[in-house]
Amino acid sequence: MSISAVAREAGVSTSTVSRFLKGQLQLSPETETKIRTAMEATGFAVPRSAVHHLALVVPELSNPYFAQLAQAVTDAAHHRDLEVSVVVSDGLEARERKIVAKCARGRGLGADAIVFVSMTGSGELLAEVPEDFPFVALDEQLGGALAERRGFVGADNFEGAYQATTFLLSRGHQRIAHVAGPGDLESARDRLRGYLRAVRDAGLEVDSRLVLEGTYSESFGAHALSQVLRLEDRPTAVFAGSDIVAVGIAAAAPRHGIRIPEDLSLIGFDGIEQGSWVTPRLSTVVQPFDELARRALDLVEAAARGAEPTVQHLPMELRIAESVAGLRPSGS
Amino acid sequence: MSISAVAREAGVSTSTVSRFLKGQLQLSPETETKIRTAMEATGFAVPRSAVHHLALVVPELSNPYFAQLAQAVTDAAHHRDLEVSVVVSDGLEARERKIVAKCARGRGLGADAIVFVSMTGSGELLAEVPEDFPFVALDEQLGGALAERRGFVGADNFEGAYQATTFLLSRGHQRIAHVAGPGDLESARDRLRGYLRAVRDAGLEVDSRLVLEGTYSESFGAHALSQVLRLEDRPTAVFAGSDIVAVGIAAAAPRHGIRIPEDLSLIGFDGIEQGSWVTPRLSTVVQPFDELARRALDLVEAAARGAEPTVQHLPMELRIAESVAGLRPSGS
Repeated sequence: MSISAVAREAGVSTSTVSRFLKGQLQLSPETETKIRTAMEATGFAVPRSAVHHLALVVPELSNPYFAQLAQAVTDAAHHRDLEVSVVVSDGLEARERKIVAKCARGRGLGADAIVFVSMTGSGELLAEVPEDFPFVALDEQLGGALAERRGFVGADNFEGAYQATTFLLSRGHQRIAHVAGPGDLESARDRLRGYLRAVRDAGLEVDSRLVLEGTYSESFGAHALSQVLRLEDRPTAVFAGSDIVAVGIAAAAPRHGIRIPEDLSLIGFDGIEQGSWVTPRLSTVVQPFDELARRALDLVEAAARGAEPTVQHLPMELRIAESVAGLRPSGS
Repeated sequence: MSISAVAREAGVSTSTVSRFLKGQLQLSPETETKIRTAMEATGFAVPRSAVHHLALVVPELSNPYFAQLAQAVTDAAHHRDLEVSVVVSDGLEARERKIVAKCARGRGLGADAIVFVSMTGSGELLAEVPEDFPFVALDEQLGGALAERRGFVGADNFEGAYQATTFLLSRGHQRIAHVAGPGDLESARDRLRGYLRAVRDAGLEVDSRLVLEGTYSESFGAHALSQVLRLEDRPTAVFAGSDIVAVGIAAAAPRHGIRIPEDLSLIGFDGIEQGSWVTPRLSTVVQPFDELARRALDLVEAAARGAEPTVQHLPMELRIAESVAGLRPSGS
């Protein structure tokens, strides 16, 4: 039975039934009842979601942030009786593209939808994905025109970074370094913008020497700390763009005779569980892992129904632990 | 062309050719040359490894040990141009069985081999796996008769636990608690046996109250610490059967006013990177992650060739950091 038969029976337009079935239309209870009754009368079967097996592409699993995000997506998917294959891209554009092509063309991986966590921000790989194949970007928004036809959910990185920096400013810090992530990632640029805006909103001059940029790794954190300690008029606080970098800073601090937070306050970003393993416990901006995972799956299901893609930025939460101290009234 | 034609041409037995092709037979260079020449002459094509896409089943990704092991397998596989899907079992036997059945029966996951990290030790799921489907157990050996037909590679847990306990004894500790893993895991039982043997070899009585058993989780570590601190004649050291439990102990210690290592020495097990994020850095017994991963893939390839399965236990390495102190001559 066709949609037009249902529409005739219900006395509404074909387009109304079609958009209702795609979840694009909120109807009055009366109209919805009319359509549902017409569907039953005509024996129309609702097209069910075709998604049973999801490929989740992540850059790596040794960074606890991605492992924790993968666990959250897996948990949410199992809750919906959806199987997940986690595929590691190594953060390389060529591999990202190869994996996505394999999945979307049904070659070998058997997945019928993709949730994609990019480490390059490149949306060119979407050329490999048929338009009706459900594809959702998670955590990192992709660039380019093709990406605009796809759903995305991630954290509000700008606002999270703004909160973290503003908190440090409120504790009296004026020289705050920012250890930023790779500049080709929109998320890293948003965090940087949040930091810069907060500094300016406090009426302070931005000092570009206070901004360092590098990979999301413990070793870059250690390297960044030695850079920060060499700066003239040494910063009293660091806002790191990821927890793994913050942990690298905290782990390297004793080697420089630096105590956190007495000599240097520190805030990370992401809210990985391991931040509470560090002494002192890491203050951070927390990603809403479970909500991100649920929304990503909602977007996959919406894409499978042919619904219009949406872009969602979820709020983050500042979690203050022991790694931040107020500045003494005498200054540093 | 058949194997028997090659054997006739080479003047050797069919079984010799067959075992040679399966990698089960070391031949003299002369015989090998004879066989290779006969293969060329008869146009015999060597059966190539059919493995292109591996399913790696792990209990969870939020425990860094499994995330790190999954990363090691993924790295090793990419090195061999082998794609990996990581599938999370949630450590539940029913899900382990369902996933393995799906993979092995070619339903949905598209994998042509399985590397399986069990959290239950149950080998019954092998009933779902056709005999010629490459299946290798990694890290946790499976029980039951079916498992004997499959390859396995894991660490020498007994020896690792023996080393850790012996080291604590050598530093003067005599009351050493052991926080063991789940008793249905062979690996956990081996670690317990290593601990018990070391205590007995030191001429000490085993005190069963010093052995606690529970899940591999930070929260069980915190719980175990409060149990340990309530014991009469309080232990001066703890050997934890996993790093995540040791980290849980270290994180909970300040809440009890306990300093590590001054008040309590601590050794973990596994060698996760995050053990070096804790203050003081965690002493531990290190799993040979990369070697485990490489051997698992070798076993997969051997299974694909029809080679006889082997069981391999790799040596572990004691890594002493800051979490162990010698007992003062005056005792505790």
